[in-house]
Amino acid sequence: MADKNIEAMRAQILTDALPYIQKYYGKTVVVKYGGNAMINPELKYAVMSDIILLSLVGIKIVLVHGGGPEISGMLKKLGIESKFVGGLRYTDKDTAEVVQMVLSGKTNKDLVSLIETEGGKAIGLCGIDGSMIKCTKMNDDEFDYGFVGEITAIDPAPIEKVLEENYIPVIATVGIDSEGQVYNINADTAAAEIAAALGAENIITLTDIPGLLRDVNDPSTLISEIHVDEVASLIDSGIISGGMIPKMLSCEKAVRSGVKKAVMIDGRVPHSILIEMFSKEGIGTLMKM
Amino acid sequence: MADKNIEAMRAQILTDALPYIQKYYGKTVVVKYGGNAMINPELKYAVMSDIILLSLVGIKIVLVHGGGPEISGMLKKLGIESKFVGGLRYTDKDTAEVVQMVLSGKTNKDLVSLIETEGGKAIGLCGIDGSMIKCTKMNDDEFDYGFVGEITAIDPAPIEKVLEENYIPVIATVGIDSEGQVYNINADTAAAEIAAALGAENIITLTDIPGLLRDVNDPSTLISEIHVDEVASLIDSGIISGGMIPKMLSCEKAVRSGVKKAVMIDGRVPHSILIEMFSKEGIGTLMKM
Amino acid sequence: MADKNIEAMRAQILTDALPYIQKYYGKTVVVKYGGNAMINPELKYAVMSDIILLSLVGIKIVLVHGGGPEISGMLKKLGIESKFVGGLRYTDKDTAEVVQMVLSGKTNKDLVSLIETEGGKAIGLCGIDGSMIKCTKMNDDEFDYGFVGEITAIDPAPIEKVLEENYIPVIATVGIDSEGQVYNINADTAAAEIAAALGAENIITLTDIPGLLRDVNDPSTLISEIHVDEVASLIDSGIISGGMIPKMLSCEKAVRSGVKKAVMIDGRVPHSILIEMFSKEGIGTLMKM
Amino acid sequence: MADKNIEAMRAQILTDALPYIQKYYGKTVVVKYGGNAMINPELKYAVMSDIILLSLVGIKIVLVHGGGPEISGMLKKLGIESKFVGGLRYTDKDTAEVVQMVLSGKTNKDLVSLIETEGGKAIGLCGIDGSMIKCTKMNDDEFDYGFVGEITAIDPAPIEKVLEENYIPVIATVGIDSEGQVYNINADTAAAEIAAALGAENIITLTDIPGLLRDVNDPSTLISEIHVDEVASLIDSGIISGGMIPKMLSCEKAVRSGVKKAVMIDGRVPHSILIEMFSKEGIGTLMKM
Amino acid sequence: MADKNIEAMRAQILTDALPYIQKYYGKTVVVKYGGNAMINPELKYAVMSDIILLSLVGIKIVLVHGGGPEISGMLKKLGIESKFVGGLRYTDKDTAEVVQMVLSGKTNKDLVSLIETEGGKAIGLCGIDGSMIKCTKMNDDEFDYGFVGEITAIDPAPIEKVLEENYIPVIATVGIDSEGQVYNINADTAAAEIAAALGAENIITLTDIPGLLRDVNDPSTLISEIHVDEVASLIDSGIISGGMIPKMLSCEKAVRSGVKKAVMIDGRVPHSILIEMFSKEGIGTLMKM
Amino acid sequence: MADKNIEAMRAQILTDALPYIQKYYGKTVVVKYGGNAMINPELKYAVMSDIILLSLVGIKIVLVHGGGPEISGMLKKLGIESKFVGGLRYTDKDTAEVVQMVLSGKTNKDLVSLIETEGGKAIGLCGIDGSMIKCTKMNDDEFDYGFVGEITAIDPAPIEKVLEENYIPVIATVGIDSEGQVYNINADTAAAEIAAALGAENIITLTDIPGLLRDVNDPSTLISEIHVDEVASLIDSGIISGGMIPKMLSCEKAVRSGVKKAVMIDGRVPHSILIEMFSKEGIGTLMKM
Repeated sequence: MADKNIEAMRAQILTDALPYIQKYYGKTVVVKYGGNAMINPELKYAVMSDIILLSLVGIKIVLVHGGGPEISGMLKKLGIESKFVGGLRYTDKDTAEVVQMVLSGKTNKDLVSLIETEGGKAIGLCGIDGSMIKCTKMNDDEFDYGFVGEITAIDPAPIEKVLEENYIPVIATVGIDSEGQVYNINADTAAAEIAAALGAENIITLTDIPGLLRDVNDPSTLISEIHVDEVASLIDSGIISGGMIPKMLSCEKAVRSGVKKAVMIDGRVPHSILIEMFSKEGIGTLMKM
Repeated sequence: MADKNIEAMRAQILTDALPYIQKYYGKTVVVKYGGNAMINPELKYAVMSDIILLSLVGIKIVLVHGGGPEISGMLKKLGIESKFVGGLRYTDKDTAEVVQMVLSGKTNKDLVSLIETEGGKAIGLCGIDGSMIKCTKMNDDEFDYGFVGEITAIDPAPIEKVLEENYIPVIATVGIDSEGQVYNINADTAAAEIAAALGAENIITLTDIPGLLRDVNDPSTLISEIHVDEVASLIDSGIISGGMIPKMLSCEKAVRSGVKKAVMIDGRVPHSILIEMFSKEGIGTLMKM
Repeated sequence: MADKNIEAMRAQILTDALPYIQKYYGKTVVVKYGGNAMINPELKYAVMSDIILLSLVGIKIVLVHGGGPEISGMLKKLGIESKFVGGLRYTDKDTAEVVQMVLSGKTNKDLVSLIETEGGKAIGLCGIDGSMIKCTKMNDDEFDYGFVGEITAIDPAPIEKVLEENYIPVIATVGIDSEGQVYNINADTAAAEIAAALGAENIITLTDIPGLLRDVNDPSTLISEIHVDEVASLIDSGIISGGMIPKMLSCEKAVRSGVKKAVMIDGRVPHSILIEMFSKEGIGTLMKM
Repeated sequence: MADKNIEAMRAQILTDALPYIQKYYGKTVVVKYGGNAMINPELKYAVMSDIILLSLVGIKIVLVHGGGPEISGMLKKLGIESKFVGGLRYTDKDTAEVVQMVLSGKTNKDLVSLIETEGGKAIGLCGIDGSMIKCTKMNDDEFDYGFVGEITAIDPAPIEKVLEENYIPVIATVGIDSEGQVYNINADTAAAEIAAALGAENIITLTDIPGLLRDVNDPSTLISEIHVDEVASLIDSGIISGGMIPKMLSCEKAVRSGVKKAVMIDGRVPHSILIEMFSKEGIGTLMKM
Repeated sequence: MADKNIEAMRAQILTDALPYIQKYYGKTVVVKYGGNAMINPELKYAVMSDIILLSLVGIKIVLVHGGGPEISGMLKKLGIESKFVGGLRYTDKDTAEVVQMVLSGKTNKDLVSLIETEGGKAIGLCGIDGSMIKCTKMNDDEFDYGFVGEITAIDPAPIEKVLEENYIPVIATVGIDSEGQVYNINADTAAAEIAAALGAENIITLTDIPGLLRDVNDPSTLISEIHVDEVASLIDSGIISGGMIPKMLSCEKAVRSGVKKAVMIDGRVPHSILIEMFSKEGIGTLMKM
Repeated sequence: MADKNIEAMRAQILTDALPYIQKYYGKTVVVKYGGNAMINPELKYAVMSDIILLSLVGIKIVLVHGGGPEISGMLKKLGIESKFVGGLRYTDKDTAEVVQMVLSGKTNKDLVSLIETEGGKAIGLCGIDGSMIKCTKMNDDEFDYGFVGEITAIDPAPIEKVLEENYIPVIATVGIDSEGQVYNINADTAAAEIAAALGAENIITLTDIPGLLRDVNDPSTLISEIHVDEVASLIDSGIISGGMIPKMLSCEKAVRSGVKKAVMIDGRVPHSILIEMFSKEGIGTLMKM
């Protein structure tokens, strides 16, 4: 027989989750997966288990991922040298091919395998499937980044069908243009556009920081919530800076397109997704309108 | 921001529930509700919250209830004297009417109200609705118990429709014969027959004891699991005795009709349903084939 | 073999009903059931048989009922004294409980039983089920009537689902507020609001008078038809008076909300529903826009 | 206002029809239409009105017709002489064409028009549509009847689709072989085979006699009911004779194939279909198993 | 084994058809069938085979036909003399009956039979079925043409249902008024109105000329494409003249009602429908907006 | 205007395809894609165009592919040396990862891209998605081939869903075991098992030979058709030898599991799939039961 006190506490905690499950029931939540949570095996398991749990309690979870380190590793192994332009890696034809191959053949399918092994049901897709992520070459006045794409249209139909059949869609963010050329797509941007196209309730971005910090060295200066209209001034004041700028701008765009909430959470905290969604205070930084 | 350790523990506990949710996902579970869990307000809330939680995580929960004390109270208030026959209350025409009225108009709708107020969706029905519980007068060689019915057929369609529309069906156990006469139906029996008619995975009976005890005064003698074939000998040996006899016989019948598991649990333990369903050891006494 | 002349006449009468069946086919008709037609057993049978017949010929019939005499009887039996306020019974907490119990447990289920026994299919619900009739305490400048509710919202979904499954919905008019408190709801008002929420073609109210009479003592002064805009002046002139005022105001509201016709008919005439619906002239008083 | 007594009687008669409507609700009934009921305009109207009424009360009515006099009239007008073989008209190529044209273009569409004008919904089809009535040349040891077909298969799908869309299917009995040649098909046989293929509850054949008579000159000798096994001996004894033989054999085949009841009724009696279906005794001669 | 070169060419030609199939996939195309293509047996086969092929590759084909020569032939055989009014045949009651009979019983069912024999699936209907083509007597200031109808409403539902079930609808253009009187309807007009009611992509009219010719004696003066706005001036200039006027006006109306393209093609060219739809240049004269 | 003779011939060829389209309409055909047809760009385009055409004419096409040269190329680039065991490449952990990555990320998505660019709709999946291809380590008495899998179960559901939504499923043949380990799966075997699981009509295997040849150096010795029972003796006699043995054994298994036809065709012939399916003689070697 089960230990009474522990069981009682367990039951209480499950019961406390009830209002949060009710709140998200039948809603779509896009999780942008990346950073440490994608490298550390334990964190990986924790994320997958969160995803499966949310899916089982009736929340439509969509997992969108990039694949940083695996791509770099493969490029290195293949001896493809990385050129840098304006601080970003230049994506030449060979690199674009490796990006597609690693993202949709390695990272994506490894995640599907993990979910399936943990008892969930998943289907892995990329932007090429059903031409789901249509793009053109990114247009930049200053630099030419090569085969880096700018999204022109998202067709949410393949993702919706997968959700209808009760599989978790796992989406690798490569895009395709009308000639069939494949492009590297920023995963934060793609996740935000997918969330908008799906009419998602929520987009949760896993990062390697506790959230937006007033003082980057002091976690106690976490900003728990901002309004979308504050993004611009937070960039001006330097509080949103570096890699956070594109992330926050993507989130802003998603929220302005109808997504109710965009949350940046600390992917280094095990089960941070559950903690965010199933507690009153949440964690990280919430952006809404 | 949420307390990190508590949140981590909460997340872990939710995560631990995952395999149990997976196991019951889409399955039908009939809960026979009665005893203290139906009287004590806190226990009542706990049961309703368990029911709503199970319903939200994709388990098809059917709540079947009797209504002991409320019926007695009303009979007393109305000055209807209770005759006893063979140790059981005799159900005369007036009593039968009171049973119908209290069970399906008071107890049943109060439960529906409680679920609705706690954020669930429920529809209250009784055996009269759609002639769902068809019965005849109970045939007993020795005694005439009056309008006590013996189930002849269950039509699961109204319950299934309610489940399909994502409401929790709450069922009051009165039956109806072909002339429209209403009968008092033993709630344990009705729950078991309903479970069988629905092809339920599981029937959980809430009682006021920890389960089947070898020594009724010693909770440490709990029998955790029995095989259906043992019921007869356990009755012979007196271990199953008194009010437990009809409960165990109903469970036996349900299991023999295809219900996978029948469990007697202690309704006095808060969230005993969750503890039973979401822990490895479960609680109470499990009967299976 | 059947008598030729009688059979020929029967066939002719059935044939004459044809255009009326065609007219109402697939339409929703709400019947507000009350008065003598609910007390006299023969009238009761006639109403149920009308209801079943209309349902079988493809008309979506919804039966909405109050429960006057049975509630009073039960209050009396229970020794709950009735306080009167402003000419109306004050509904205290105990009374509200009795109203719920009798209306949804006795009157409602007895009607379901009657329909089922006569060969129809019925499901009995009340405003608590699925929180179908949401209300707040009635706000009255002069008097406090206790737990008498004012409807704030009708959720027609549970009724529509029951109609879709080809059961006749039988609705007891108790309401529920957001805290789960149950209220007594005026049945005429509830029927009218339900008709509006369902987009009904027609609401038929059974009364104990032949319809609206210019001279209440002279049935030959029946007003066969009025326009909704006349209601106010008919109240001013005293032709609509007493208990007819709330009935006529409810009907007016239903018609203004899109219900095509509201008819007050004499429930003391056997099969008055059929006569109203299946004859050119109809009976009683018709209100339309 | 409506006359009270007449209205009461009308209501009573409608009410009396209730159990019959309940009995046939959702069932399929094939009406083989022919004889006087197809010539006399008043009878025609009565049949169509019966058909529409039955369709509206939820009975799936299929109207199957031949077209005797109109075919003969057209052949005469066209100067196509009728050859007779073994007492039957020989169907040469020209005659087969006229049969197809008159049956499916004149008789069939006139019936559809009549139903539509009377407020019903009908679609007229013949055995050529969707190759619904597949046949081969009738194989007879003694005579060659020309393009008279023997049914090899009925495809009930087109009729079922028309019923699903709530139209009354009106079927002209011409058949088609695998080369596209059109054949004249006996309408009684076709109706019986269609009834069997549809799993009909009932086939009603309209004739110009009161039913099967022991003494053909004495209507009081009507045989109200026979068992399928009696057909052979009734033919031997001459009670079933002449044109009744193929009719009775077709009915026998239908009943042996699963149709519950086959009834021969007097089409000269107005509304004989309603009288048969909506009275306890019925009329004519009933054959069952 | 197949001859390599021929097979390669066959495959290439099928491959070349690909973009045209993609273009029309799931779209509705109305074919107005008439003229030589309806008389010459080889052309008839070719049209039916085109129709079946288009239907199989996922195009929703509706075949609308008149029946000129067969009607004249039958009128002659029946000795019904043709009166002419304002250059058109006067349709008296007898003639209207013959039109109905021949069009919907002979021409229509022969086409259905042909399609079925060639391996397609077809259902033949006329404007009487489901009162699909509602009309009134044509109103003309100068002449009375008798029972010639002017379309007042098209109910596309029966055609859509037939398409949904994957049958090719074959439509005979007779109309019906509210009293059930049948009228002769101009087939070009009917086809155009049906195309508009169905929201068709395309209406293709088979004629006995190569298309609209500047010089009626010189096929090289074919006008390949005109804008709807040019119709009036082309009539004024006499380029559209005689029987082409009503055809072009019908097409104009269809295009103005939302049909994307109206094409007049030469029905004397075998497979002209396929050639028009599956080649870049098409044939005949295209009208669009 | 189009050239008349060429257009007539084109139309005739399309018309000739009609019976083949009818024959395969709604049927499932699995194409095992490999060899030269996967390397030569023109052949690749031709195969994709065939696939799209077949899909548009209502045939459910499933494209199953391996990825030989691209895998070898990547292994070489990555400096992973190929060990050979018993004549086959040994698949170590690194190799298995490369196989997964290249097959499902490069080859698979490139094919999807090609189909999408040519106007078709495709979704690329591999055996990991939804655990569609379950396997265990291949059990071989003599050799250990490493992570080469033996199929234990195919779940056809993901493929069927993709087909239902009118996408062409493109399947990369990697498998997954219950621990999530990925295996290299023989593509011929996988295609055959998938065909069996889908209840396919036909499996077409593209090879680099004209079919089964009695004399491997003489194309005129092509064996057009064999019975499944002949496979064993053809292996014994050496006519089926080398790489053809596993291909023919897979086909045999598919046919024995209910696939109607298995055809080996010459993938070097452009449009060989269309030629096989749309000509009477077909090409290559047909195996059936």
